[in-house]
Amino acid sequence: MTTATVTTDMSAERVSELDNSHVFHSWAAQDLFNALPVVSGSESSFTDYEGNTYLDFGSQLVNLNLGHQHPRLVRAIQDQAEKLATIQPAFANDARSELARLLAEAAPGALNQVFFTNAGADANEHAVRMARLHTGRQKVMSMYRSYHGATTTAISMTGDPRRWPNDQGDPSVVHFFGPYAYRSAFWAADEAQECERALAHLEEQIILEGASTIAAIIIETVVGTNGILVPPAGYLPGIRALCDKYGILYIADEVMVGFGRTGTMFAVENFQAQPDLLTFAKGVTSGYVPLGGVLISDAVRDSFATTVYPGGLTYSGHPLGCAVGVETFAIFEDEQILEHTRQLGDEVVAPFLAGLADKYEVVGQYRGLGLLWAIELVTDRDTREPLVPFHPTAEQNEPMLKISAACKAAGLWPMLQQNRIHIAPPLIISEQDLRRGLEIIEDAIKEI
Amino acid sequence: MTTATVTTDMSAERVSELDNSHVFHSWAAQDLFNALPVVSGSESSFTDYEGNTYLDFGSQLVNLNLGHQHPRLVRAIQDQAEKLATIQPAFANDARSELARLLAEAAPGALNQVFFTNAGADANEHAVRMARLHTGRQKVMSMYRSYHGATTTAISMTGDPRRWPNDQGDPSVVHFFGPYAYRSAFWAADEAQECERALAHLEEQIILEGASTIAAIIIETVVGTNGILVPPAGYLPGIRALCDKYGILYIADEVMVGFGRTGTMFAVENFQAQPDLLTFAKGVTSGYVPLGGVLISDAVRDSFATTVYPGGLTYSGHPLGCAVGVETFAIFEDEQILEHTRQLGDEVVAPFLAGLADKYEVVGQYRGLGLLWAIELVTDRDTREPLVPFHPTAEQNEPMLKISAACKAAGLWPMLQQNRIHIAPPLIISEQDLRRGLEIIEDAIKEI
Ligand SMILES: Cc1ncc(COP(=O)(O)O)c(C=O)c1O
Ligand SMILES: Cc1ncc(COP(=O)(O)O)c(C=O)c1O
Repeated sequence: MTTATVTTDMSAERVSELDNSHVFHSWAAQDLFNALPVVSGSESSFTDYEGNTYLDFGSQLVNLNLGHQHPRLVRAIQDQAEKLATIQPAFANDARSELARLLAEAAPGALNQVFFTNAGADANEHAVRMARLHTGRQKVMSMYRSYHGATTTAISMTGDPRRWPNDQGDPSVVHFFGPYAYRSAFWAADEAQECERALAHLEEQIILEGASTIAAIIIETVVGTNGILVPPAGYLPGIRALCDKYGILYIADEVMVGFGRTGTMFAVENFQAQPDLLTFAKGVTSGYVPLGGVLISDAVRDSFATTVYPGGLTYSGHPLGCAVGVETFAIFEDEQILEHTRQLGDEVVAPFLAGLADKYEVVGQYRGLGLLWAIELVTDRDTREPLVPFHPTAEQNEPMLKISAACKAAGLWPMLQQNRIHIAPPLIISEQDLRRGLEIIEDAIKEI
Repeated sequence: MTTATVTTDMSAERVSELDNSHVFHSWAAQDLFNALPVVSGSESSFTDYEGNTYLDFGSQLVNLNLGHQHPRLVRAIQDQAEKLATIQPAFANDARSELARLLAEAAPGALNQVFFTNAGADANEHAVRMARLHTGRQKVMSMYRSYHGATTTAISMTGDPRRWPNDQGDPSVVHFFGPYAYRSAFWAADEAQECERALAHLEEQIILEGASTIAAIIIETVVGTNGILVPPAGYLPGIRALCDKYGILYIADEVMVGFGRTGTMFAVENFQAQPDLLTFAKGVTSGYVPLGGVLISDAVRDSFATTVYPGGLTYSGHPLGCAVGVETFAIFEDEQILEHTRQLGDEVVAPFLAGLADKYEVVGQYRGLGLLWAIELVTDRDTREPLVPFHPTAEQNEPMLKISAACKAAGLWPMLQQNRIHIAPPLIISEQDLRRGLEIIEDAIKEI
């Protein structure tokens, strides 16, 4: 065996060297990827070893809702570690009990029980298992424009190109088209028609697949990585109605949009929609400790009242994560995070992006709510041709790389997806930092 | 929204009440399950709210290798939280770099890169994805007597009854019989013959399945929950040879047995076997922070040198978990954990269990190594009929419940599986506590 060294005084070169020789990276070609070593973070920014500080406009992976190194979250970890760092899922624990209560009380409707997981992918896997066993049906329907995680069923449900190399996974997943008025798959003229036609199209597909074979429909309440697609007003209530009509369960994937991202605790609150199962992760701890989970309706829960639920995991309801979750709820109240988020979205981001759309031909559309927005860049406003195509090659992607470089040079770490600039800063961002970041984005757009 | 309360002064009744109303439990019938509220832990024991202290003979879920509340692990969490609680996987981080180095250097052979996951199930999912993409083949072979986790591919690979209600998962998994000399599936007379026949039988199955369709064989180095089945000397080298012959990858699942459980850092070291991929979780942090991962051979890694690896996760390489992992390596050295484990296994457990086998007819066999042992209870030594059958009903399980009650009354929390008593205390247990625990088990056996 070899010597473990204290890591506190490692040089940037050493961090990089070890990363390159020993860390295998997510979603990357290993030889072509070079990870920037980051040394510290504070509120809405993080800093590399050369002292460059970046405004974090993606909240890491849209999970750092309460920002970097929130002193109360740091303290919650430290206190829980001191008290009881871990205990297995079959014992009861105060932090876990309390977080379960807070989640159940905050959840829309009667989602009274919570099954804790480690993250988003496994939350979705367990939600699907519950739906399958509850309904006695096997199929799951999910959107082409979606991301649900990287374990077998989660990646099979995912619609985007990350699924392609994993396509022989769960054979019981069927994809459908959701509403996306700006690029309608239904030849719709406006949002209202898009909504109506998306629901009609889905119902037709349910009938042809065989309603009696479908356990669940899973939907990101606002589609995240695949476009910040805010559903038209009637869409999610329409999904609820279809599910009721055909005995299908409605699973809301709120891994990205839960915990305030859209200005409400859970995003479904914006749309008067009531899911049977709701999955969460990311914002529940702002990523400080891995944690995820499934909120469960009484009806689904009762399917496992006297029958064993055939699923589980070693770290279910980990006390460290649960303590951070409890403190997260307290901070949301004390710092009025939801109000702050709504106000910044409505009064700062929306008017700023409206201004961009007025000024620059390349801005095809902007959309979003709370602190989750997308700017769609196009080569032509009439044809709406994307600035870079779906699943671009490196060469095709060059205009977006230029935007990325311009943002970074000006001190902003942007979140770019295909032909879109996503805007998802920590919810605790100050109005001043938010405006500064938006201006950096404007300058970057000017360059192309 | 509702008020978040500080949890530090919650009563046992309140912890239980909230647990019963809001926490959905792993592998349980929710109405029939009542979780004991635990208030604290220290070294090899934990304590409930009534002040009862239990020797933890299962190390929670065989993951608390360094015991409850190890001050150095607690401190590692606190220091890392203070420094940098989280950062996304695409940035480089000192704790992650350092843990990757330590893992790569400790790993058997040339497993030089590590992909970090949250836990055991997703480590196995990613290992299988790598194997499938590396070989261009789809099938995976796993043992009937095995547990690999609860996400779709992991539960499909699992052999035990927990798979049954999840059977329509990953369609490309094929199960085979491993060696188990005490209950041979090959009519073998001894360990050597069991080994030879198990390998011959597996080769026959590989040929009939079609070697060219098989990406990987996954094996728990010592089968854990399904029996503490220590493979005969030549078995794992035989697996390596079969894999080489047919171009199949060998995945070692060391989620339970890694990190010293068997007296070596990784269990394969006991058997001179070299896997292509090795998965770990549990002991890497003693469960203090969720963490898992895959150790990867250069050949497999190079399949993703210039091709994107199509998998990832939000918390991959979480700094909090990595900091605990680094400190774990340091503690293993400073406290000579491996030597201590081997010594207690060889000099205390083995002779004690030999004594039990001499004294009690009900003890059919004992087996294990390091601090991982099983006592098989039988109704008849000649027929070897298990004291309770495979997948027992509650009624059939009564003798085991009696043992459980006797142990708990005497201050020991036992780990019971089917007709077996498993012995898996924290590796830091003192000789005195170990002997006390073994004596409690002897007394419980006396009662039946
Ligand atoms: C909507 C959605 N669902 C699920 C996931 C998967 O979560 P995790 O990466 O924690 O497995 C993500 C992660 O980005 C997500 O955005
Ligand atoms: C051998 C083995 N593999 C995989 C797992 C799954 O690990 P997790 O529960 O962390 O997903 C376990 C858990 O008990 C295990 O014992």
